[in-house]
Amino acid sequence: MAQRPAVRPHTLTPGVLFQLVRDGQASSRAELARTTGLARSTVSQRVDALLGLGLLVEQGGGASTGGRPPTQLVFDATSGVVLCADLGATHCRLAASDLDSNILAELPGDLEIARGPEIVLGWVRERFAELLDEVGRSPADVRGIGVGVPGPVEFAAGRAVSPPIMPGWDGVAIPPAFADDYPGALVLVDNDVNVMALGEYWASWRHSCDDLLFIKVATGIGCGIVSGGLIHRGADGTAGDLGHVQVPDAGDVLCRCGNRGCVEAVASGGALARELTSIGIEARDSRDVVALARAGNAQAVTMVRQAGRLVGEVLAGAVNFFNPAVIVIGGDLAHVHEQFFAGVREVIYRRSTALATRHLDLARSRLGDRAGVIGCAVTVIEQILSPDAIDAALAPGAGSGEATA
Amino acid sequence: MAQRPAVRPHTLTPGVLFQLVRDGQASSRAELARTTGLARSTVSQRVDALLGLGLLVEQGGGASTGGRPPTQLVFDATSGVVLCADLGATHCRLAASDLDSNILAELPGDLEIARGPEIVLGWVRERFAELLDEVGRSPADVRGIGVGVPGPVEFAAGRAVSPPIMPGWDGVAIPPAFADDYPGALVLVDNDVNVMALGEYWASWRHSCDDLLFIKVATGIGCGIVSGGLIHRGADGTAGDLGHVQVPDAGDVLCRCGNRGCVEAVASGGALARELTSIGIEARDSRDVVALARAGNAQAVTMVRQAGRLVGEVLAGAVNFFNPAVIVIGGDLAHVHEQFFAGVREVIYRRSTALATRHLDLARSRLGDRAGVIGCAVTVIEQILSPDAIDAALAPGAGSGEATA
Repeated sequence: MAQRPAVRPHTLTPGVLFQLVRDGQASSRAELARTTGLARSTVSQRVDALLGLGLLVEQGGGASTGGRPPTQLVFDATSGVVLCADLGATHCRLAASDLDSNILAELPGDLEIARGPEIVLGWVRERFAELLDEVGRSPADVRGIGVGVPGPVEFAAGRAVSPPIMPGWDGVAIPPAFADDYPGALVLVDNDVNVMALGEYWASWRHSCDDLLFIKVATGIGCGIVSGGLIHRGADGTAGDLGHVQVPDAGDVLCRCGNRGCVEAVASGGALARELTSIGIEARDSRDVVALARAGNAQAVTMVRQAGRLVGEVLAGAVNFFNPAVIVIGGDLAHVHEQFFAGVREVIYRRSTALATRHLDLARSRLGDRAGVIGCAVTVIEQILSPDAIDAALAPGAGSGEATA
Repeated sequence: MAQRPAVRPHTLTPGVLFQLVRDGQASSRAELARTTGLARSTVSQRVDALLGLGLLVEQGGGASTGGRPPTQLVFDATSGVVLCADLGATHCRLAASDLDSNILAELPGDLEIARGPEIVLGWVRERFAELLDEVGRSPADVRGIGVGVPGPVEFAAGRAVSPPIMPGWDGVAIPPAFADDYPGALVLVDNDVNVMALGEYWASWRHSCDDLLFIKVATGIGCGIVSGGLIHRGADGTAGDLGHVQVPDAGDVLCRCGNRGCVEAVASGGALARELTSIGIEARDSRDVVALARAGNAQAVTMVRQAGRLVGEVLAGAVNFFNPAVIVIGGDLAHVHEQFFAGVREVIYRRSTALATRHLDLARSRLGDRAGVIGCAVTVIEQILSPDAIDAALAPGAGSGEATA
């Protein structure tokens, strides 16, 4: 389905054979030979190279009934560790995962991103060391590090670019902060909503669709975009910035961006908290709004439903424009499932074209608070285990033989 | 820049070597060896295979001053022909191009797509035969056929899906219509605005950016999306359907889709023609609107500028969402350059976030009426000349040795 580079039958490199085993399409040398049409001796040579990298292991065998033992080839997801840091404005979640994006240990925490890169990244380094201890692994086992930050990112350089809520971070490259502790690790940095989108896509949707939107409605409103199986970041890394799209029914409320009528100014958790407070119902943030709605507060319920409608207005435009197969809704407000969802659904199906919605799936986040760290892991793993990276690691002169990009 | 599969240094297949010559990165066997690090003998073996396909030719040489003659390797764009059909609602343009998307002959015409696939495709087949005659080539020279149609397309199957203005075409696969005349040709079908977007991108922007929007404002309003160097078609092939996005200032005008306030109902050439007619100024279609504005008719000029503002409202949302590097504006209304552009520009820069617009380029279509046929050619050429297609053509058992996907 996806537009990701397909398995190329005429260039059956070791990296491609590895992919076949990892994807479950072949689980022995014989099956690889059958699937690919390669000579058994060629397959064996390439599998031996992969065994040397430690990414595949042989299991079973040893049957002494005569004949060739049924040795299985298995992807060893424990052969390396990925460290993940999902950094929000005021909260964060750190984790260690295996090479199959299974979380081995995690650590939610409070952390003000506004304290700047030195303090924040120093703190992350300390927690990473603790996580590694907890899972009984050493820095040499760390194959990669994924970091999500709440702002636009220049992905290739791993740095935030003019991030509105990250004072002190503008233009600071993040990968060097981990170079001393983890010299062999690939460090990738992306926007926090992008990594959440990738986490949700990878965990639940990649086998059934190519194009997905993940919308996070919490203090602010943001969107991660998967196009053809890949994150669409845009020319300046700001793609998915839906919070400042104008909605027709938003009235004249002033947004923090300086414009009027932005959806974030009227439908985000922060906006609802302010609105509730203004009518005498105390609510500090989106979590308080959710708690009130859950407790059945009539005003909160009405506001949450109306917020869903306004978010639906913006998503209706995005559906016409992008024609996603799935929209996943996450963030605090998604936890008030019925009211918010009903509002979103009502408007999307009324305002989008029939052609763009006839197969559209509206789903709730399945990974919840873990979407970010799992997305960080996937971001790194898809790079270091790509056929290209594997083949590069095996190429003459690749030195250590480690599979890094 | 692009996210297209990069040249993979460790899998320097013949297809990759061909790409290096075609892109101008190497123009001799010696340069290929130097650029790739491959042994001279390996390069020669692979170049010989490419010469056998007819896609490369050797030029020069023959110098008799001793030593090796300076033979140049050149991509032979004349080694095949692509036939292109850009079919609109009532007009069409057919063309024959070489393998470098240079138009060799073309034929604009009037053709009602609503006459149905049998009549329309029969007519196209006849014109294709005439175009081939005109350029002195035979059906065997035709490597591929590209077709653009004014509706959503299931790209993999080459068929329109529930196209609103193409009665009789729903679900009809188009490629079989050309199978008898051109059995060796790859036939690809896409939405007309998508092919225009790809044509503009390829001709002018692919070396400087990855993410582009092409918006066509004529009788209707549509948008083609380039994400990471590739056309984003969406889950149902309807991506880019911006005409039915609601604009805040559109009032209560009923759209043909049944909703109110769609941008197409108030800012398309068709809408302006109706509006002018309603105040006593005769205008049948978007071309009449353009003619009136060009002639200085004050009402037409005011309306065109206001239409630009309304299109700008929709594009402002698309800029926030997609963060393109470039927006190319085409279609009839783009020909009224100053007024329409000024309206679009004014609103985009006011309504989009500063981060998303600081590098944004707003440009006018450079290919004009030819964008569609050139895009049809590029759609086909990028498939049949991809490294994968070349390598597949050279693989054992590929039969004819022709480079088809």
